[in-house]
Amino acid sequence: MIEVSQNSDFSLQNLPYGVFSTKHDPRPRIGTRLGDTVIDLAVLDEAMFFGKRYNFFANATLNQFMEAGRSVWTEIRQRLIDELSKTNYQIKREALISIQDAQMHLPVAIGDYTDFYASREHATNVGIMFRGKENALMPNWLHLPVGYHGRASSVVISGTEVVRPRGQVARKDAPPEFSASRQLDFELEVGFFVGKGNNLSEPIAIENAREHIFGMVLLNDWSARDIQAWEYQPLGPFLAKNFATSISPWVVTMDALEPFRVFGPKQDPTPLPYLKVDSANGYDLTLEVTLQSAALESPQTISRSNMKYLYWGIDQQLTHHTITGCNLRVGDLCGTGTISGPTEDSCGSLLELTWRGERPIQLPNHETRKFLEDGDVVTIKGYCQGDGYRVGFGEVSGKILPARN
Amino acid sequence: MIEVSQNSDFSLQNLPYGVFSTKHDPRPRIGTRLGDTVIDLAVLDEAMFFGKRYNFFANATLNQFMEAGRSVWTEIRQRLIDELSKTNYQIKREALISIQDAQMHLPVAIGDYTDFYASREHATNVGIMFRGKENALMPNWLHLPVGYHGRASSVVISGTEVVRPRGQVARKDAPPEFSASRQLDFELEVGFFVGKGNNLSEPIAIENAREHIFGMVLLNDWSARDIQAWEYQPLGPFLAKNFATSISPWVVTMDALEPFRVFGPKQDPTPLPYLKVDSANGYDLTLEVTLQSAALESPQTISRSNMKYLYWGIDQQLTHHTITGCNLRVGDLCGTGTISGPTEDSCGSLLELTWRGERPIQLPNHETRKFLEDGDVVTIKGYCQGDGYRVGFGEVSGKILPARN
Repeated sequence: MIEVSQNSDFSLQNLPYGVFSTKHDPRPRIGTRLGDTVIDLAVLDEAMFFGKRYNFFANATLNQFMEAGRSVWTEIRQRLIDELSKTNYQIKREALISIQDAQMHLPVAIGDYTDFYASREHATNVGIMFRGKENALMPNWLHLPVGYHGRASSVVISGTEVVRPRGQVARKDAPPEFSASRQLDFELEVGFFVGKGNNLSEPIAIENAREHIFGMVLLNDWSARDIQAWEYQPLGPFLAKNFATSISPWVVTMDALEPFRVFGPKQDPTPLPYLKVDSANGYDLTLEVTLQSAALESPQTISRSNMKYLYWGIDQQLTHHTITGCNLRVGDLCGTGTISGPTEDSCGSLLELTWRGERPIQLPNHETRKFLEDGDVVTIKGYCQGDGYRVGFGEVSGKILPARN
Repeated sequence: MIEVSQNSDFSLQNLPYGVFSTKHDPRPRIGTRLGDTVIDLAVLDEAMFFGKRYNFFANATLNQFMEAGRSVWTEIRQRLIDELSKTNYQIKREALISIQDAQMHLPVAIGDYTDFYASREHATNVGIMFRGKENALMPNWLHLPVGYHGRASSVVISGTEVVRPRGQVARKDAPPEFSASRQLDFELEVGFFVGKGNNLSEPIAIENAREHIFGMVLLNDWSARDIQAWEYQPLGPFLAKNFATSISPWVVTMDALEPFRVFGPKQDPTPLPYLKVDSANGYDLTLEVTLQSAALESPQTISRSNMKYLYWGIDQQLTHHTITGCNLRVGDLCGTGTISGPTEDSCGSLLELTWRGERPIQLPNHETRKFLEDGDVVTIKGYCQGDGYRVGFGEVSGKILPARN
């Protein structure tokens, strides 16, 4: 019996998918996770565990599995749950690998990456800082989920170190200089993967949107605020964010997350019909950010938030993305945007937590932080709490390395 | 002897690469073009034309060919030029296909697509319209090539019809409505393909930038101005541009374009050292846009421009893209942004040509155009003029279809 503690993110109700390799077998392949055990699905598949051969579990990405479609996703999940629920389950010993022995890889070949801006609290905080309280939210914000295209090539797996970027920064009324960023930040986000695409010029109706989503991950949208402030007008963030975006390695399926759907904030004004949702389209997903400096002995919690605070649901984000006819493809990644809550300690970025550096964070060893320093490790964790079990994401973590010369 | 007229875009000095298929053999494969003849490089490769087998010419994209690296690109080009220069060249008859019989396909599997904003005239025109003459150029514009991430999935091949997008539009001080775009526009651009990537956190030095570029195409960045105006703040254009971006089918190599390098506009202020270029980094590439309405018997020229007007060179765009550490991959596409010239008739978009619709274009049959109407065909052509020959791009063309219900 595989042991699963009550506090494990990886209960039988979860069974997320990831890509891993081992020293013994360095070929990246697909596994699921139960407690601290990775189950090698390529080995199960070869042993006809699923009653037939799927073959795609030996792949280095989830894409082909995702392309197989929802009925296959459900079939595989159900078979795993059925067998693993037995006290005397029949799984070959060689398919069971300790998480300690597994090296995780980027789980998906990402086509396009899009980032939204769907938290009202975050947009309001940033708006107040940059435009004042009266004009905090742009006129469009309450009518549509604002989003922009991000960089797919630099999406990296948790654990990848992040080199402090260098670029153009400018103080007010002074010419720009070339410098390492002095305002490096994280952004607490959730990402979701497209599991079913749409044809060009054929938007996805809001009631079908969730059917197109395969699963979710935690996402850290690293941001260089000083580079962003100088470059972003009029076409949006570019180099300030494309140096790295980190995601957690286990893709938690929509089936596993289904019991944790909740209603999001009331939407007023009522969205246009193509964006109107009457069902619970939020997720009660507890989120936490920790920071560990080089001098600190253990990580310090700096933010607690929850995905349920998001104003725009992921179904609304996905449908809006396609409304002018844009085609989504299997493996595309969308980020929700920074998820900030209503309180000061639930902000999803240092920009907000320190109010642009005006209120530095105090660390227990008397260090302070306005923005990230070299050697800092930022970790995002998240889980949904069930009755006696959790459906969790594990973590996405990254350490800041000094800028290169 | 393959006939090549003096005015053909596809001289012996050109030899661009594209992906085509025929009725007789519907497998997409790689070819080059001389005059109106496509040369099937997969057939040549099989016949050991290159002295060895490359195998990648039977692929449906150029990516593997591009990955082979510059020495291979040069070797193949030289061998083709050597043989085709002979009056009695040895090329199997079955390798020669009339362009009439060739169906062209998207030549590259595009990873990420980035669009720049590198024409001073275009940025100034748009700036005057939206912010007035005094604040036309943003403070950052003369210091860096402004760019943003675009949508790779909706890059389509010339000839693909473009369905008029529907989305949110808003008149001043009124709530937004859901409508077909009433301000559909084209943007005259050149695109360039990355042929050699870089590792994450390892920027490409400006003196090496051109080495990373495989070749160029014509690009039409279709834009819905009314959707753009409502959605773009603060994170930039999104749905207003991601419904379609069209490119020409033949990738013209940097080797073929080398003789047409010219100095671009003087850059004042001098760019920061990482962007400073002393050599000729512009291209004397004549560009023309035609519009043919459903009622017109022939296309009408509505703009004449030239790539030499670009303020920021493609080497500067590419280096800037990587300066914070962003990794480029083989097959990534970058657009230069709209290329407008100094005169009214050299503007690269209807937005500028009609000054936001204030000065409609008169067509010869007494139709007028503020923005594109259903049935309109927009075609961009471009060539470099050599002494008695041309190195041209052919065209990128697209017809507007009515919005779908």
